[in-house]
Amino acid sequence: MAPITNGRVLFAAIPSGYPVLGQDLVYDTTQTIDLESVPLGGGVLIKTLDLSVDPYMRQRMRPAEVPSYLPAFPLGEPIVSAGIAVVLRSEHAGFKAGDHVEGVLPHQQYTIIAEPEKVPLIPLHVVDNPHGLKWSAFLGVLGIPGHTAYFAWKAYSQAKKGQTVFVTTGAGALVIQLAKLDGCKVIGSAGSDEKVQFMKDIGADVAFNYKTEDTREVLQREGPVDIYWDNVGGDTFDAVLENAARNARIIACGMISAYNEPRGVPIYKMHLVFAKCITIVGFLVSDHYSAESLAAFVKDVHAGVASGALKHQEELFDGLERAGEGLLAVLRGTNKGKAVIHVADE
Amino acid sequence: MAPITNGRVLFAAIPSGYPVLGQDLVYDTTQTIDLESVPLGGGVLIKTLDLSVDPYMRQRMRPAEVPSYLPAFPLGEPIVSAGIAVVLRSEHAGFKAGDHVEGVLPHQQYTIIAEPEKVPLIPLHVVDNPHGLKWSAFLGVLGIPGHTAYFAWKAYSQAKKGQTVFVTTGAGALVIQLAKLDGCKVIGSAGSDEKVQFMKDIGADVAFNYKTEDTREVLQREGPVDIYWDNVGGDTFDAVLENAARNARIIACGMISAYNEPRGVPIYKMHLVFAKCITIVGFLVSDHYSAESLAAFVKDVHAGVASGALKHQEELFDGLERAGEGLLAVLRGTNKGKAVIHVADE
Repeated sequence: MAPITNGRVLFAAIPSGYPVLGQDLVYDTTQTIDLESVPLGGGVLIKTLDLSVDPYMRQRMRPAEVPSYLPAFPLGEPIVSAGIAVVLRSEHAGFKAGDHVEGVLPHQQYTIIAEPEKVPLIPLHVVDNPHGLKWSAFLGVLGIPGHTAYFAWKAYSQAKKGQTVFVTTGAGALVIQLAKLDGCKVIGSAGSDEKVQFMKDIGADVAFNYKTEDTREVLQREGPVDIYWDNVGGDTFDAVLENAARNARIIACGMISAYNEPRGVPIYKMHLVFAKCITIVGFLVSDHYSAESLAAFVKDVHAGVASGALKHQEELFDGLERAGEGLLAVLRGTNKGKAVIHVADE
Repeated sequence: MAPITNGRVLFAAIPSGYPVLGQDLVYDTTQTIDLESVPLGGGVLIKTLDLSVDPYMRQRMRPAEVPSYLPAFPLGEPIVSAGIAVVLRSEHAGFKAGDHVEGVLPHQQYTIIAEPEKVPLIPLHVVDNPHGLKWSAFLGVLGIPGHTAYFAWKAYSQAKKGQTVFVTTGAGALVIQLAKLDGCKVIGSAGSDEKVQFMKDIGADVAFNYKTEDTREVLQREGPVDIYWDNVGGDTFDAVLENAARNARIIACGMISAYNEPRGVPIYKMHLVFAKCITIVGFLVSDHYSAESLAAFVKDVHAGVASGALKHQEELFDGLERAGEGLLAVLRGTNKGKAVIHVADE
């Protein structure tokens, strides 16, 4: 079989704010690959099906010498993120052709992974799909975003019936539903009327568009807030501190507003943490994986999605060449549900 | 006996930054009292011995309609704070002449308290002094500052041997000594060379003057920080976030730098809470009082002070007319040790 094009999304230059497509992120089609004869070096050849695009990726588009919790993307190489692929060929005992795998994958159509167990952050592993759910869902409600919501809600929320929970951004769909299952009152905010409607559809007691309604006013009317699920930081964080209940808990799982500001986004009301006995917990989902936690997740969340009891929403960007577009959408918050780059059907 | 002057420190006007003495705080000598004949209404007449001045008092010097964790001081009335007094006369079964009492007391020389058990925040209660220690110490190492340090260190530090602890301001003397007893490395910062020397004298491994040495540089060299005992907030808080270890804990017991800034002092690096899995705990000491916690405190801290194993430092301002001067000193950080207004000997 003749070599075919192997499209890639390259990290070409360091952006100063939002990445510029065609300049900072470039879709490249100069490489080819012969799927039948390319040497595997004892590893696997995979075909990428779906790739996640998430706000944290902007953090990795920085100069290599600036430290952060994840290494910078190397310039000139494909960007990487969580992805789902199917194994085409394998010389590795842990994988066989036809297996579906998850891992941190480069944004390219076909990849040889010589040492699947050494893939950083998420080593390549076979994904179980006992309920036969859509593969793109394994990057959203059934993947890291879902794990993040589920593990942290169980570990840190200490939710009690009747407490008030505030969740920002539509990405918190699973959090909203877990909070409702625990008997909480849920306030949700999002940046579009469609997302607001979706939050109401899945059970939020109060949902509002933060671009047209003032977060402080809503929280003053509907709060005080016992549990805040923080995705955005900045002024919203201040608004929550001002409207927090005594002994409130803030679960910090990402502060999107800080990613595009070199200095960080200021928070002015931290002294209220002391005045109101607030606890703030930062966590990384990678600390929470275990056989037990994953089994609980399949039992509660896979089954809930399969039965329709748990709702989720995704926006597919068709074609790897649209990866940059998808990333910009999540950085700007214009995506409708979990953004996934759908690279190929099986 | 003829009536005598009853000096008072009045909250006369709302300051916009640091209180202005003679304008916002006024020492008033227009009232008199007849100690022998004044009616007690079933309560007690007390003679004030020592009064605490603390940064949080600035928070109460605000318009009554602005909410905060403690009510605003009423305009035209004496300011109040923790104090030690001796009972001169009593019509209340719980007190007798000669008892030493602690409570939130008005800044005046003599006070009638009709309902001692209803004094807000710290109801009037007899103070035990089994080791015969100086009464002013009951406003410092043996009083609320000591309780704050001891209860919170025990409840929240989760200190492990070999961890690095950063303590700001000389007020953290007891924290430094508790951290050393737990086998930690202690970094202390203060605003004067005398305070720095005192920190070294009580065991701090590293102590520096933040006015002449850069906090970031010291923390970068001596950190990363596992436990931060926060008294100041603001840029120091950011410096700690930048130099925090993974899973660091920040104990927030007061942010002095925010009190004099109407908008609050910005913190820019909150996104690191998530990146480094940091936990921030705010608390109020009033939530931690119990018979058990106080018994442990007497056993550990009273005994330690009596034997000299635990060191402390205080600066006495002699005379109630110096209360405003003492308060300004703690707000500006120029006090040498715990600031106490020594109103009268017994």
